[in-house]
Amino acid sequence: MGVHKQRVAIIGSGNWGSAIAKIAGYNCARHTELFETRVNMYVYEEMVDGRKLTDIINTEHVNTKYLPHARLPENVVAVPSAEEAACDATLLVFVLPHQFILNVCKSLRNAIAPDAHAISMIKGVEVAEHEISIYADVIQDALGIPCAALSGANIANEVASGLFSETTVGYRPHQRRLAEYYVRLFDTPQFRVGMIEDVAGVSLCGALKNIVAVGAGFVDGLGWGGNAKAAIMRIGLMEMRRFSLEFFDNVKPETFTETSAGVADLITTCYGGRNRKCAEAFVKTRKPFNVLEAELLNGQKLQGTETAKDVYEFLEARGKVDEYPLFKTIYEISFKGLDPEKLTENL
Amino acid sequence: MGVHKQRVAIIGSGNWGSAIAKIAGYNCARHTELFETRVNMYVYEEMVDGRKLTDIINTEHVNTKYLPHARLPENVVAVPSAEEAACDATLLVFVLPHQFILNVCKSLRNAIAPDAHAISMIKGVEVAEHEISIYADVIQDALGIPCAALSGANIANEVASGLFSETTVGYRPHQRRLAEYYVRLFDTPQFRVGMIEDVAGVSLCGALKNIVAVGAGFVDGLGWGGNAKAAIMRIGLMEMRRFSLEFFDNVKPETFTETSAGVADLITTCYGGRNRKCAEAFVKTRKPFNVLEAELLNGQKLQGTETAKDVYEFLEARGKVDEYPLFKTIYEISFKGLDPEKLTENL
Repeated sequence: MGVHKQRVAIIGSGNWGSAIAKIAGYNCARHTELFETRVNMYVYEEMVDGRKLTDIINTEHVNTKYLPHARLPENVVAVPSAEEAACDATLLVFVLPHQFILNVCKSLRNAIAPDAHAISMIKGVEVAEHEISIYADVIQDALGIPCAALSGANIANEVASGLFSETTVGYRPHQRRLAEYYVRLFDTPQFRVGMIEDVAGVSLCGALKNIVAVGAGFVDGLGWGGNAKAAIMRIGLMEMRRFSLEFFDNVKPETFTETSAGVADLITTCYGGRNRKCAEAFVKTRKPFNVLEAELLNGQKLQGTETAKDVYEFLEARGKVDEYPLFKTIYEISFKGLDPEKLTENL
Repeated sequence: MGVHKQRVAIIGSGNWGSAIAKIAGYNCARHTELFETRVNMYVYEEMVDGRKLTDIINTEHVNTKYLPHARLPENVVAVPSAEEAACDATLLVFVLPHQFILNVCKSLRNAIAPDAHAISMIKGVEVAEHEISIYADVIQDALGIPCAALSGANIANEVASGLFSETTVGYRPHQRRLAEYYVRLFDTPQFRVGMIEDVAGVSLCGALKNIVAVGAGFVDGLGWGGNAKAAIMRIGLMEMRRFSLEFFDNVKPETFTETSAGVADLITTCYGGRNRKCAEAFVKTRKPFNVLEAELLNGQKLQGTETAKDVYEFLEARGKVDEYPLFKTIYEISFKGLDPEKLTENL
C-alpha cells in the first residue's frame, strides 16, 4: 500500500501560527513516514529592528516579533510569499488573522495542488448580510478543497512553552482518515489532539464562547461571585449548542459539552482573556466598548462584543432573538444601554 | 382536586442549611397554596455567647454562629430536637454534616409521618467496605421514604446574600410531580432550580467534583496555566460521568455536562474552595495533606482527597483503577508520593 507523504505549509505566522508551527515542525521531523520534514511557513514580510522577519526566523529560528520566547525547529522555513509557501503542499494549515483570509485564498486558488486539503485554526465567524459562515467553509469554498477545523483551550504562549493542553480537530463526513493525519501532525505528549466529525461545531465553539466570556466578565465586574459566573457559563454553553444545532448542518451536541473546543475553551476564555477583562472594565468604568478598545486593545475590536452583535442581527433577521436570552442580554448591555444588573433577569 | 399543603422541616442548620432555610422560609410564606407557612429547622443546641443558639435564631432571626450576615424569615422556627422538628412534616430537607446522618435518621425513623418524603443536600458519598453509597440512598433506606437530591454551584454565603445562582434537583423515577414541589420550595428569581430524573448523578457530581478540584489545584500549584487547568477539568468531568454510569443505576449522562450540579459546580469548585486551595499548597510546600489539614482546615479532613482515596479503593477492589487514569493519578500524588509533575503523564 503506497503512502504519499504529506507536505505541510502553515499559512500564517502570528502568535498562534508560530506556536502551531513549532509543534508541526517537531512532528514532521519525527513522523518521517507520514510527513516531509520541511514545513513552509508563510510570513508576511516586515522589517524588525532593521532586518527582514523571514531572515530572522530562518537564521535565528525565533519569531522575534510574535513569539519571542520560543525556538522554532530548523525544518520550519519562513517564506515571504503565500503562493510559494503553499505551491507544492498537500496539507495547508490556515492560521491567519481573519481579515486577510479572502485575499490570501484568492492568491492561492491557482497556486495549490488539486489534491491539497486544508485545516483552519481561525477563530471567529464571517458575517455578510446577516449570514454567518465559519472560516473552514469560507476557505473550502474559496479554494475548492476540503477544509477541517482545529480549536481548543489553547492560549498560544502556554502551548509554545510546552505546558499541557488539549485541542480538537473537527473533520468533514467521510474524512476520518484525513483527520488522522491532522491528529498526527499536531499531537504531542503535551498537546493532546482529539477529533470529532463536526467542523461547524468546533468552529462555532471558538466564535460563540467569546460572547459568553463577555457575560462572565460582566459578572466579575458586578462582583456577583462564583455561583453566578458558573451559571452564566452553563447557560451560555447551552445557548451556543442550541444556536449551532438550529442554524448549521451536521453539528454534534457533544462537541460543546465534551471536547476541548467546547467546554474547556469556554472555561479558559471566561477566566482569562481580553473579552472577560474588557467586559469587567465596562461594568466598573461604564465606559463604552469603543473607548475601552482604544484604551485597552490599541483600538482592536473585541471579538466577543462583535460576535454578540453579529449573532443578534442574525437572530433578529429570523425573528428568533428572544429564544437566546443570554446572547440577547449580553448584546443589549454591550450596545443598547441595558443596565448590567439586569444580566440574569430574562434567563 | 384536593391538594394537601406540604409541611416543611429543615434537618440541619449550618452554613448551607441556614442559607437554604432562608430560601425555603421565603417560598413557604409566598406559596401558601402549596406549603404551610411555618418551617421547622432542627438546630443542634449549643451555647453562643452565653445564649442558646435556638433562642438567638427565634428572637433575632439570625444564625449568628453559622450564617451571621443573613436574616432568616420569621416563619423559620429553630427547634432543638430533630424528632420534634420533623414529626409532622411531609417534606424533610436533609442538610446535615454527613457524620451525623445515620444517628439522626435512627432517631427519626419512628417519629416521621409514613407519607413523608425527603431531599438530601449532603455532598459527598458514604463508603463502607469498598461500597460507595450516595446519601439520598442512605436516608431513603434508613427512613423507608423516597429521597431526592439537590446539588449545584452553590457557595452558601453567595446564595444567602441573594447573588444569582442555579441548582439542580435530582428526582426518582415516577416522582416528577413530587419534584415539582421541591422546585417550588427552592426556586426564586435569584436561585434558579432545574430538575432531572437522576438522583445518583446529581449526588455523585457533588462528591466526585472534589477529586477533580484537587487536580485543578495541583495545576495551579505547578503554574501550568489556563489550558492545562481546563484540560484537567474536562478530563475529570468525563471520568466523573463514566464512573457514575458504570457503577450506579439510572444515571443520565447529561446530568454531568448540562446541569448546575454537573459542569457548573465543577467550575466553581475548581476556581474556588478549599480542595483547590489545599492542593495548590500541597504542590508549593510539599507538606503532606494531614499537615495541611491541620494548618489550613483546623484538622478537618479535605473532601477531595478523602473521596479520591475512597474511589481508588473502590476501583482497586474491582480491578478497574487503570480505567480512570486521572482519578488514579490524583490519588497517587496525594498519598503515594507520585511527583505532581506527572499529573498528565498517563492521561
